[in-house]
Amino acid sequence: MNPISGVERAQVLTEALPYIRQYNGKTVVVKYGGNAMVNARLKQQVMEDIVLLWLIGVKVVLVHGGGPEISELMEKLGKKPEFVDGLRVTDRETADIAQMVLAGKVGKTLVNLLQMNGGRAVGISGMDGRLIEAKVKDPRLGYVGEITEVNTDPVRDLLDKGYIPVVSTLGCDAEGNTYNINGDTAAARIAGALGAERMILMTDTPGILRDKDDPATLIPEVTVEEAANLRAEGIVSGGMIPKVECCVEAIRRGVNKVIIMDGRVPHAILTELLTDEGAGTMVTGGAE
Amino acid sequence: MNPISGVERAQVLTEALPYIRQYNGKTVVVKYGGNAMVNARLKQQVMEDIVLLWLIGVKVVLVHGGGPEISELMEKLGKKPEFVDGLRVTDRETADIAQMVLAGKVGKTLVNLLQMNGGRAVGISGMDGRLIEAKVKDPRLGYVGEITEVNTDPVRDLLDKGYIPVVSTLGCDAEGNTYNINGDTAAARIAGALGAERMILMTDTPGILRDKDDPATLIPEVTVEEAANLRAEGIVSGGMIPKVECCVEAIRRGVNKVIIMDGRVPHAILTELLTDEGAGTMVTGGAE
Amino acid sequence: MNPISGVERAQVLTEALPYIRQYNGKTVVVKYGGNAMVNARLKQQVMEDIVLLWLIGVKVVLVHGGGPEISELMEKLGKKPEFVDGLRVTDRETADIAQMVLAGKVGKTLVNLLQMNGGRAVGISGMDGRLIEAKVKDPRLGYVGEITEVNTDPVRDLLDKGYIPVVSTLGCDAEGNTYNINGDTAAARIAGALGAERMILMTDTPGILRDKDDPATLIPEVTVEEAANLRAEGIVSGGMIPKVECCVEAIRRGVNKVIIMDGRVPHAILTELLTDEGAGTMVTGGAE
Amino acid sequence: MNPISGVERAQVLTEALPYIRQYNGKTVVVKYGGNAMVNARLKQQVMEDIVLLWLIGVKVVLVHGGGPEISELMEKLGKKPEFVDGLRVTDRETADIAQMVLAGKVGKTLVNLLQMNGGRAVGISGMDGRLIEAKVKDPRLGYVGEITEVNTDPVRDLLDKGYIPVVSTLGCDAEGNTYNINGDTAAARIAGALGAERMILMTDTPGILRDKDDPATLIPEVTVEEAANLRAEGIVSGGMIPKVECCVEAIRRGVNKVIIMDGRVPHAILTELLTDEGAGTMVTGGAE
Amino acid sequence: MNPISGVERAQVLTEALPYIRQYNGKTVVVKYGGNAMVNARLKQQVMEDIVLLWLIGVKVVLVHGGGPEISELMEKLGKKPEFVDGLRVTDRETADIAQMVLAGKVGKTLVNLLQMNGGRAVGISGMDGRLIEAKVKDPRLGYVGEITEVNTDPVRDLLDKGYIPVVSTLGCDAEGNTYNINGDTAAARIAGALGAERMILMTDTPGILRDKDDPATLIPEVTVEEAANLRAEGIVSGGMIPKVECCVEAIRRGVNKVIIMDGRVPHAILTELLTDEGAGTMVTGGAE
Amino acid sequence: MNPISGVERAQVLTEALPYIRQYNGKTVVVKYGGNAMVNARLKQQVMEDIVLLWLIGVKVVLVHGGGPEISELMEKLGKKPEFVDGLRVTDRETADIAQMVLAGKVGKTLVNLLQMNGGRAVGISGMDGRLIEAKVKDPRLGYVGEITEVNTDPVRDLLDKGYIPVVSTLGCDAEGNTYNINGDTAAARIAGALGAERMILMTDTPGILRDKDDPATLIPEVTVEEAANLRAEGIVSGGMIPKVECCVEAIRRGVNKVIIMDGRVPHAILTELLTDEGAGTMVTGGAE
Repeated sequence: MNPISGVERAQVLTEALPYIRQYNGKTVVVKYGGNAMVNARLKQQVMEDIVLLWLIGVKVVLVHGGGPEISELMEKLGKKPEFVDGLRVTDRETADIAQMVLAGKVGKTLVNLLQMNGGRAVGISGMDGRLIEAKVKDPRLGYVGEITEVNTDPVRDLLDKGYIPVVSTLGCDAEGNTYNINGDTAAARIAGALGAERMILMTDTPGILRDKDDPATLIPEVTVEEAANLRAEGIVSGGMIPKVECCVEAIRRGVNKVIIMDGRVPHAILTELLTDEGAGTMVTGGAE
Repeated sequence: MNPISGVERAQVLTEALPYIRQYNGKTVVVKYGGNAMVNARLKQQVMEDIVLLWLIGVKVVLVHGGGPEISELMEKLGKKPEFVDGLRVTDRETADIAQMVLAGKVGKTLVNLLQMNGGRAVGISGMDGRLIEAKVKDPRLGYVGEITEVNTDPVRDLLDKGYIPVVSTLGCDAEGNTYNINGDTAAARIAGALGAERMILMTDTPGILRDKDDPATLIPEVTVEEAANLRAEGIVSGGMIPKVECCVEAIRRGVNKVIIMDGRVPHAILTELLTDEGAGTMVTGGAE
Repeated sequence: MNPISGVERAQVLTEALPYIRQYNGKTVVVKYGGNAMVNARLKQQVMEDIVLLWLIGVKVVLVHGGGPEISELMEKLGKKPEFVDGLRVTDRETADIAQMVLAGKVGKTLVNLLQMNGGRAVGISGMDGRLIEAKVKDPRLGYVGEITEVNTDPVRDLLDKGYIPVVSTLGCDAEGNTYNINGDTAAARIAGALGAERMILMTDTPGILRDKDDPATLIPEVTVEEAANLRAEGIVSGGMIPKVECCVEAIRRGVNKVIIMDGRVPHAILTELLTDEGAGTMVTGGAE
Repeated sequence: MNPISGVERAQVLTEALPYIRQYNGKTVVVKYGGNAMVNARLKQQVMEDIVLLWLIGVKVVLVHGGGPEISELMEKLGKKPEFVDGLRVTDRETADIAQMVLAGKVGKTLVNLLQMNGGRAVGISGMDGRLIEAKVKDPRLGYVGEITEVNTDPVRDLLDKGYIPVVSTLGCDAEGNTYNINGDTAAARIAGALGAERMILMTDTPGILRDKDDPATLIPEVTVEEAANLRAEGIVSGGMIPKVECCVEAIRRGVNKVIIMDGRVPHAILTELLTDEGAGTMVTGGAE
Repeated sequence: MNPISGVERAQVLTEALPYIRQYNGKTVVVKYGGNAMVNARLKQQVMEDIVLLWLIGVKVVLVHGGGPEISELMEKLGKKPEFVDGLRVTDRETADIAQMVLAGKVGKTLVNLLQMNGGRAVGISGMDGRLIEAKVKDPRLGYVGEITEVNTDPVRDLLDKGYIPVVSTLGCDAEGNTYNINGDTAAARIAGALGAERMILMTDTPGILRDKDDPATLIPEVTVEEAANLRAEGIVSGGMIPKVECCVEAIRRGVNKVIIMDGRVPHAILTELLTDEGAGTMVTGGAE
Repeated sequence: MNPISGVERAQVLTEALPYIRQYNGKTVVVKYGGNAMVNARLKQQVMEDIVLLWLIGVKVVLVHGGGPEISELMEKLGKKPEFVDGLRVTDRETADIAQMVLAGKVGKTLVNLLQMNGGRAVGISGMDGRLIEAKVKDPRLGYVGEITEVNTDPVRDLLDKGYIPVVSTLGCDAEGNTYNINGDTAAARIAGALGAERMILMTDTPGILRDKDDPATLIPEVTVEEAANLRAEGIVSGGMIPKVECCVEAIRRGVNKVIIMDGRVPHAILTELLTDEGAGTMVTGGAE
């Protein structure tokens, strides 16, 4: 990057004005995962982006998963991760491991990082204040949870007190069981229940591509209806299917717009929200 | 227990009246550990006691450690726990394990249990909202933390919103390191900073005994000054020394009274707080 | 009563947990009268019960009458109490006597007793803040009031400020007249307007008995519909008819459940509300 | 009175402007008694004056006694009122009578009258919320109380909720006894504890007269110091002595100014507070 | 005026009681103009009236125009005022002059006067907080604005903070243009949006007269429907037509009652609002 | 300026993070004047800078003067501006002109501009809420005011309600006179009374220069003490003397730091506050 002068910096800041106005006081839910959670430099930039949003008056909620970290600890403990239809078979011991990894390691480490960058954060899981209630989705999968209810009180209470809530996607039930919950789904449900202005789904893809091998064919914006057509045409396929379903679910439940964001782009969140460039595909409800 | 009639029950409840009056609106910090955290039936009773206190308007803060659980996971992962002067040598990996065990497993499981008994709880650690800031105590011990500052805002914010805060005793610093913190000390510092009415230190002893082999010699109440004398006389010795030091520290920092409680007694907390029987040794500041 | 140990006491307290949870923050209106208001020991127990409910976060409103005390003062003043259809003929002088006895003597004495047991109470009458507006019910009866409006603001304001409102059942009108108001009816109207969780009607009967001479035939619970049937069958008869009508009225106006309570049973209120034993007949709205 | 035109009326209202400004948001305690409480027309005017003050944003507290009414009921009940040094000998039965008359009859009737004139009032006694705590002053007098503590919370709570508190001057103690309290003293203590801007002591005299037989010698304003001199000179004598002592006490405890008001003058309160004419003698603290 | 005694003054004040009760906490919008704004004595009385209303708890909003002052400055600056259909042709320079005269001179001078009489006032214009958004009404007239939206937030915020808002009737648009706005219309729109209890339109006429040359034929009250008939009959004619249209508009948009007030009568506002005499013609919505 | 990519923009935004953190919730008073108020492009940038600060949670107060505009209108009206010691001789007519120009034209135009850039602003003068009370400074100068008191309530009330207060520096007195007030002094007094974090004094100089002809000799920071020395040495001279005096006064009255800013630099405010480049000379209190 060429050196940018103080005046140019000020210019950039003022050009962000209309965007800052737009998000001031609004809720943005960021589902954090993929490469942006592994690569140290990207991670640092995501933290900076979130703290900046928080400082300019956006209510940011950071939702994270941590599949690879769960597998890693399982393996260290001599347990072999097993998957059925892409879902982790979760016996009681695995559920305990997921709880330790997500609520104990990943979540609290994110809290630490946000605070090192000047934010104030509190890490909660789906158990805290019964944020995410769940039940067994499929007995063969064990403690993989299907969300039965989302109680956003603890998230709202923390936003109210000025914290960035960091949510580990675990579920609870009335018997005290812990469930492993799909992070994208949890984020969509929480964002919907909060009536969020934006939900950002960080992925390792550029967004929805018309030709999946050509980034230049990125579709910058689709309506829920167009997304259904794209899937019927086979343009939305493979791993993009559940992502898009999740976006549609979020919008159906009350989110204004969802962005399937390329988490590999530096400062993708700020670029998307505070400049006139986009960073992925935006899914909208269509004609108002 | 003989069957107790409805009228007798009502009688018992009304006899608790003056005690309920006394603690209504006050803060009680419970440092939970030892046998009461291992034995399932005692654990259930502690949960009931805490939820009852919460329901009658006491602001309860539950502080917990989890040394045995840390050792257990370390061993499963092939790491041998080492101790110097009773303090766990904590390399970076051990600190990570402690974080997972305390904030991820023990804390969130307590949240689950409190909620199964009707409470509303949120589990936080010393990292959340920078509750406990720490620095290296002794380079030989690695990430064993000496508390440099206690910021009770996150605890107060949760109490304010009607939750039972469950605190995992980890510490943080400006560089993002996690520290293993002595649970008793953390509880004393938090209770002091909150100006708690009572701090309860759950132990596996009956309290301070004049003859350590004879429970009948229990000393029901000592002042800070008398405690010093008892130590000089050798009556307070061994493992009781740090417990008593911790009580004295708590009182010095603003707690009204501290109880070294026998956690092996069923419903020891309620017995101590809501009946005219005691359950251990109460340490007080002495003449007002 | 056999001596009950501290542990048993704690056990009793925790067994009250689900009940405490149920009533925490809810409104309970107690219509106090009959034997429980005459017998000193029962009176003391009612006071204890109410203060305990207040301490565990129940919003208790105590509504009282005082017919016998009114008659007593009338006789001392040389006036002969007269009744038509069970209603006291109330000339201006009698209305003044009722005002002095209820608002001056009975109400303020209850305030004193509640405060001696640790509560904070304020005694108000239907004139204060125009709580109960009334008109002449039947010119032959003089100042016997039919309630035209209930303005619960003064009751809510006192609950809001943390007091136990003690309500003397007098009525007012725009001309400054004072009316003698039936206590049960006033309680039902106030409880209804407050949307109370429970209304307790203290009586000198065990509740509704299938065979009025056999306490063993107590009907523990009836719906409004069943109550109508019981009356048609003649099982609800005599003095029980207005009691049951009053219960039905309370439910129709918004109270969740009403209990016709045997005020002669020690600690009947706590037994009913905080244990799994009942103390009378509960009237409910029926199928939800 | 000559007819006053609309314009003249408006003129009068605007001339009250500076006075309204002065008392807006301030507390004025009126000790009501004497002729102004007996004469129906004066009574109506006092009620109008108080409601007007309340409407223009003054926090008015009405404190009343009721000696003659107590004597009247005693006599009707065949008890002969007895006095020692001007204080009523008060056995238990007399205390009960005082309670009925003051809290039941006089207080609630004033509430009724204020509300007929458009105010919102609640009548409380010294028992409610333990407003006035007392002890036996002199065993020979029985339940004549010496004030031990004034807890203004119930008065402040009612002011806060927008009511005019009407205070019956009875006292309570921890044993549940009721005391007869001197009304002037109670008003002075309450006004002092509230830091009132004005206390008005209604009397049946024109104020302090230099020549007690010549109203033209009215002293319109005295300092506490001058009052002491006037007493030493014998100008303040007889029944005026306790009145003046009471004023001095009020000022010593925090009231800004006290007026010994001629309650026989129509609309004396408004004349004193909202016009440039006075209505009695003002006692002040002297040089600021 | 004959001298009025203190007692008579107090009498007048209490006779205002029912009126004060009626307006306490309500909003009254005064459109100030005409002779009452020119004549120094009348001006002083209007200021007194408004401050008095403010002190007795009325939320007063003062809306003013200033046509003659605008013409005066234009002429001093060598510009000739031109009118088309009674509306001032307003080029950019004239709009600037209007802005200076209304927001700078007239408004702030009124603020000064209100404060000299004891009020607290803040002068705002239609630009502040975008109170009045407008567009060009007729290109031939230049910057004469037609109101497109009224945002009452700044008025409510000032009322909320205890100020008397003084509104200069200018309009703004998204391009930063300033518009000259008809004062009566602006007052009607603001009063409507505030749901005002009263709007007072100060004029130099006695109100609606059945015979325009005979003040004795004043119509004291008309409904919106009757006003339409009066216009059809030609009784409402000439300059009274827009006044009446403005009243009808105000009522249609939510004002309870509007008074076409004779601003030449001393203390007309207080006479109308706080005595049983009227001062002009009241326009009402008709049968409720 | 070279084109700056979205990523670079995001980078710039995150580099502003620590500065945003620093000013979030703090008060910054900008004294606006000179070239930056004349040049259209600079003016637009100042507006953008202020709105951006407002959006990121800074409480910005914009204080302005308008000497040239006053002179311009005077001349149009045929009045010749006269100055004594650099202060405008201000007769009554001139004071009126100043009031119209500042409160009517300059202030409201700034409100318009801020709102076109997305802010919410309200323009007040020193008369509104008696913000600036003043008296005659020197009879020869007429209505040139010396500030006698600053009442920041109206500024705080507007900040509280989320507006950017735009302050026209006029003064008022109890007789209703308007005073012309020196803008720099008014800004210093207001900033001091608000305990502002920063006061920015916009000038047409680069700041304090060691050699007034060589911008390279800019002194970036001086303490109050050093400023005194610089003046003694003659380095601070001419028009810089009152500027520096004003800075010293602001710091003495409670402002943390003052910047003598070069208003000719584009986006000087943002460059100074949100980047690591400065834009003028910062005056500080010296050793803490």
